Amino acid sequence: MLFERVAIIGIGLIGSSLALALRKHGLARRVVCADSNPVHVAKALELSLVDEAGTDLAAAVKGADLVVLCTPVGALAALAAEIASQCTPGMIVSDVGSVKELVVERVAPLLPKGVHLVPAHPIAGTEHSGPAAGFAEVFVGRWCILTPPDGTDPAAVDKMTALWRQIGSMVEIMDAAHHDRVLAITSHLPHLIAYSIVDTAVGLEDSTQSEVIKFSASGFRDFTRIAASDPVMWRDIFLNNREAVLDILQRFNEDLTALQRAIRYGEGATLQEVFTRTRAIRRGIIDAKQA
Amino acid sequence: MLFERVAIIGIGLIGSSLALALRKHGLARRVVCADSNPVHVAKALELSLVDEAGTDLAAAVKGADLVVLCTPVGALAALAAEIASQCTPGMIVSDVGSVKELVVERVAPLLPKGVHLVPAHPIAGTEHSGPAAGFAEVFVGRWCILTPPDGTDPAAVDKMTALWRQIGSMVEIMDAAHHDRVLAITSHLPHLIAYSIVDTAVGLEDSTQSEVIKFSASGFRDFTRIAASDPVMWRDIFLNNREAVLDILQRFNEDLTALQRAIRYGEGATLQEVFTRTRAIRRGIIDAKQA
Repeated sequence: MLFERVAIIGIGLIGSSLALALRKHGLARRVVCADSNPVHVAKALELSLVDEAGTDLAAAVKGADLVVLCTPVGALAALAAEIASQCTPGMIVSDVGSVKELVVERVAPLLPKGVHLVPAHPIAGTEHSGPAAGFAEVFVGRWCILTPPDGTDPAAVDKMTALWRQIGSMVEIMDAAHHDRVLAITSHLPHLIAYSIVDTAVGLEDSTQSEVIKFSASGFRDFTRIAASDPVMWRDIFLNNREAVLDILQRFNEDLTALQRAIRYGEGATLQEVFTRTRAIRRGIIDAKQA
Repeated sequence: MLFERVAIIGIGLIGSSLALALRKHGLARRVVCADSNPVHVAKALELSLVDEAGTDLAAAVKGADLVVLCTPVGALAALAAEIASQCTPGMIVSDVGSVKELVVERVAPLLPKGVHLVPAHPIAGTEHSGPAAGFAEVFVGRWCILTPPDGTDPAAVDKMTALWRQIGSMVEIMDAAHHDRVLAITSHLPHLIAYSIVDTAVGLEDSTQSEVIKFSASGFRDFTRIAASDPVMWRDIFLNNREAVLDILQRFNEDLTALQRAIRYGEGATLQEVFTRTRAIRRGIIDAKQA
């Protein structure tokens, strides 16, 4: 039993999956949740995801030895301010957001002295949202990146490492700013591009759009799955990792413009060279067993 | 038995899959292939994909009642010129290329009078290439688009429709130019973007690149599979569907620039609106059972 009382704030896909995983592996004596949306609270109780649930965030946090904030990242700072009065020395506060420098910069200063902040980013999920979408196995075999600020109590980091390992994840510890740059290319840019190409299809005339849907298996379909992810979660990610996303987007635009130019001027050798060298990355992913 | 002798020219992923499917369903008395690459020919014989195989294209075509050109689209016109002397009235000539206006414009004029040209595009495949990558089931449940030129003998079109249906595909008949515009958005643009984003990762410093591979499951991975497709095949597609690809790429660039601007100026409402309306396309694909 790693924890006595775990409070999960926000019971969406990741919050509900974490609750189920904690209970499945017997890692907490009591798992409670709070969500400002009463529909989510009712669903959490109906599905028996937790031992107790309510809309009062501070009440859920009171007496917990671990609090995990599982909301879109744009809500984290306000949330931390709301629960701070119930945070007591020795308590661990974590989150599951896809942007991490923001957590270190904006959440840490709001917590009382003696509270251990261990930000986390489980690289896991599906295109579905809400408390009914959760399942305990979503974290199995997936990476979870922890970004504890300098000076964080090593015992708190070890405890969070143990939690993620026991529910099936591989754990990596990383600087928050570095995390945000790596995820900008591996996750944020791919999602932005997927949203953009699907939106291009939305702009087509209706008859063409229905053919795009019909023949989507030829490549387009793969983008629509990514572009079906939660809109508020992704809005917050882009607003809060702006610099890193704009930087990598600029590089992508340059590379795409070079391909565009090669097509326009019929430069087959350039196209073939690019299409050949990209295969090495795929081989790397297969070799790393991430395919 | 639909055909007496089917000659498959080019025994890569699609050529070998077609040979296997024809034999599995007993649709041809004899299936032969020719490939200018002797390594592919040897592989085809070793794997017993066909009844006979060789490097002499014209010899394979001689006496066939169906010839299917299964090479990258850039090679089709030269191929047609090479086999034309062996094409006799009543013979059906088809192909499996991803660009179709080119076939109607450049292959049709090379064929003797009385030969029936029925261009085809099976929307099927994997990221693997070569004769060992083929399997008979690759066409099952997938669309095959036929683009016969105006005035094509309806009996020849019916026969090709029967062939594709019997090996498991759904058949759609379409104007070649329209096909090329629809595929530019559903297939060519997604592939171009996937190649481009993976190439952006290729340009990163080595240490970042290894992290991109490690954490690729967060979105990037899905693009690398698409970007592992055959480089020569894709070079030829872009060179031969230039206008339609450049047109849709221009629209995509405008849409992506709008998202970039919304991120730069922190326009959360715009981002959320785009990320929400794209979900309708995903629902359409699920409803059309193409997800």
